[in-house]
Amino acid sequence: MRTQVAIIGAGPAGLLLSHLLHLQGIESVVVESRSRADIEATIRAGVLEQGTMDILTQSGVGERMRKEGALHHGIELAFGGRRHRIDLTELTGSAITVYAQHEVIKDLVAARLAAQGQLLFEVSDVVLKDVQSETPSVSFMHGGQPQQLQADFVIGCDGFHGVSRPQIPEGVRQDYQRIYPFGWFGILVESAPSSDELIYAQHERGFALVSTRSPTVQRLYFQCDPKDDVNNWSDDRIWSELHTRLESSDGWRLKEGKIFQKGIIGMRSFVSTPMQYGRLFLAGDAAHIVPPTGAKGMNLAVGDVKVLSRALDDFYKKGNSDQLNVYTETALKRIWRAEYFSWWMTSMLHTFDDASPFQQQIQRAELENVVNSRALSTALAENYVGAF
Amino acid sequence: MRTQVAIIGAGPAGLLLSHLLHLQGIESVVVESRSRADIEATIRAGVLEQGTMDILTQSGVGERMRKEGALHHGIELAFGGRRHRIDLTELTGSAITVYAQHEVIKDLVAARLAAQGQLLFEVSDVVLKDVQSETPSVSFMHGGQPQQLQADFVIGCDGFHGVSRPQIPEGVRQDYQRIYPFGWFGILVESAPSSDELIYAQHERGFALVSTRSPTVQRLYFQCDPKDDVNNWSDDRIWSELHTRLESSDGWRLKEGKIFQKGIIGMRSFVSTPMQYGRLFLAGDAAHIVPPTGAKGMNLAVGDVKVLSRALDDFYKKGNSDQLNVYTETALKRIWRAEYFSWWMTSMLHTFDDASPFQQQIQRAELENVVNSRALSTALAENYVGAF
Repeated sequence: MRTQVAIIGAGPAGLLLSHLLHLQGIESVVVESRSRADIEATIRAGVLEQGTMDILTQSGVGERMRKEGALHHGIELAFGGRRHRIDLTELTGSAITVYAQHEVIKDLVAARLAAQGQLLFEVSDVVLKDVQSETPSVSFMHGGQPQQLQADFVIGCDGFHGVSRPQIPEGVRQDYQRIYPFGWFGILVESAPSSDELIYAQHERGFALVSTRSPTVQRLYFQCDPKDDVNNWSDDRIWSELHTRLESSDGWRLKEGKIFQKGIIGMRSFVSTPMQYGRLFLAGDAAHIVPPTGAKGMNLAVGDVKVLSRALDDFYKKGNSDQLNVYTETALKRIWRAEYFSWWMTSMLHTFDDASPFQQQIQRAELENVVNSRALSTALAENYVGAF
Repeated sequence: MRTQVAIIGAGPAGLLLSHLLHLQGIESVVVESRSRADIEATIRAGVLEQGTMDILTQSGVGERMRKEGALHHGIELAFGGRRHRIDLTELTGSAITVYAQHEVIKDLVAARLAAQGQLLFEVSDVVLKDVQSETPSVSFMHGGQPQQLQADFVIGCDGFHGVSRPQIPEGVRQDYQRIYPFGWFGILVESAPSSDELIYAQHERGFALVSTRSPTVQRLYFQCDPKDDVNNWSDDRIWSELHTRLESSDGWRLKEGKIFQKGIIGMRSFVSTPMQYGRLFLAGDAAHIVPPTGAKGMNLAVGDVKVLSRALDDFYKKGNSDQLNVYTETALKRIWRAEYFSWWMTSMLHTFDDASPFQQQIQRAELENVVNSRALSTALAENYVGAF
């Protein structure tokens, strides 16, 4: 097999890149270790920045997002027994859409298949070869047969645990990481929304987040021990914890419903640089991870893909490698800004067991400052909607 | 002796309070353990917020400040080999004045003495009595004689190490504190200014600050080990360190000159609450300390005194104790905002030996974000000038 761009991984980064390249007349093949059903069902992020909404719409895969996604013009910060609204649209002119990542994936898979795009699911034994040459390739098993895919470029969109990043040798690569001493316990609930907008709550017992998936399915999270076991948490215990952390004195009440999914996710900040090595380029979680507090994960992947698709277009249309050569530098500016924002939101909203009484007061003072200062509210809103 | 308000300490807080009370027709006596010459010569802070400038001017002690102080409309943040200006006035409509604290003290002492105010210097063995009663008193030695000062109120303006705060029993008082793992090495230099505006420099070897005292005297600081000894630092070593930390690739050069004073100051954040106990009220460093990075110390003391002088006026003119009763609550809102700002500036600009590579990158990303985001620049500027 031969293609122009071999893409490892059918997440938002890989699928969107394949889609955008197709629109530019560039051929690609996507190889994915999981099944189509699996990637279309895995619950992940759900907040799309303005720029992400725009590129999905402009590239023709935004129709269902606009119809089924929920446009949000604000978020709420809750602490000290009160809720405070950050009016995203008034402060920035932009908004966000709550639309689950696996719905974006469904839309992209459908678009690729409709255009006869080559998506190979359930591949195994993926090995990247000769990525420093101009004739890199990818070998893998598919349908019980060994395959060899020749390409001009290999794009690693295979996430944090993928095979692509380790292709860049240790001595060349610099990894930056923080693992947080807490995780998020996430549940999916059958109920109507408790709030029109997302609520980010800081509480002495730990952070909690009220999010939504649809008019009938809600997504709730609360800070937990990352090593905890979901089996330690009965439905009653979960609701008790959420009520305690979320219900302030202002009379707002959380709606309960049937919990049909429970899970614990770890919290990590991670950046690996460079994001390129010869003809190998990394995009999305393969190169960087943010804790979910800033709702930036999928949006960062989309950002990488925008840069890469333009750079590849320049290469194929004009024979110009300049944009490809500075891909890492270009991408990292945006990535470190989002890493900073995600770290800041995480630090401001979570309970740290080792925080001194002084540090606890500083955290509260920071929250007060954010909601009382139009300048700081604007800074938060700009980062949240990705308007910069 | 009897007075209405006994004031412990002739720093900016005590002297300004005595001055404002006098203008309101309220009598006070200030007792100070040091000599007049001593308090008028001790080098301390030097940045006056807009609100501090305003109250000195409005109360008639701002003439020399306006004449000899330097009005600054911006500050510079230096990092990564470049300087970035924060235009305070464009962003906030306000400015700051660089005018040394001991000059403010001279002006206030002169005003109090001109108005026959009672300032007792070189007192010793100060003891506060019956502060929970309506007839508190202060006993002390003055000129070799024991003295007893009866008053309606005792105001503790005697700094972090003073006798006033310990009057509030341990069980009543809650102290919040952070001691930073570094200090500032400060020097006074005979030279012309190297810069029209203050330069706050972040460097891998540690923070440095270019400040000024007058057209012929400059004040420079650099982050150091708080336990270091000034004798370890020859003039050559000091200049070498300052050149390295301050001179970026943009061609700016630090002017050298004769170093005529050297000292090391520790860095601490501290808040004690409540700031009142019966008829005892604390103001300034007696109740709270900020690291000098945000230039807030003297301004916070002035802020306390503004609140207290109004509250005492209400008490004496209208017999109304309401403002006095909520003094702590009123003052703490402003104080925690300044504590947060000072902690934030300190965290953003200093080198922390235990910072991981990730944390170092986050610090750089935060600085980039501050200088590239008008919203965050505005937030910094508003806090710096005290415009909120």
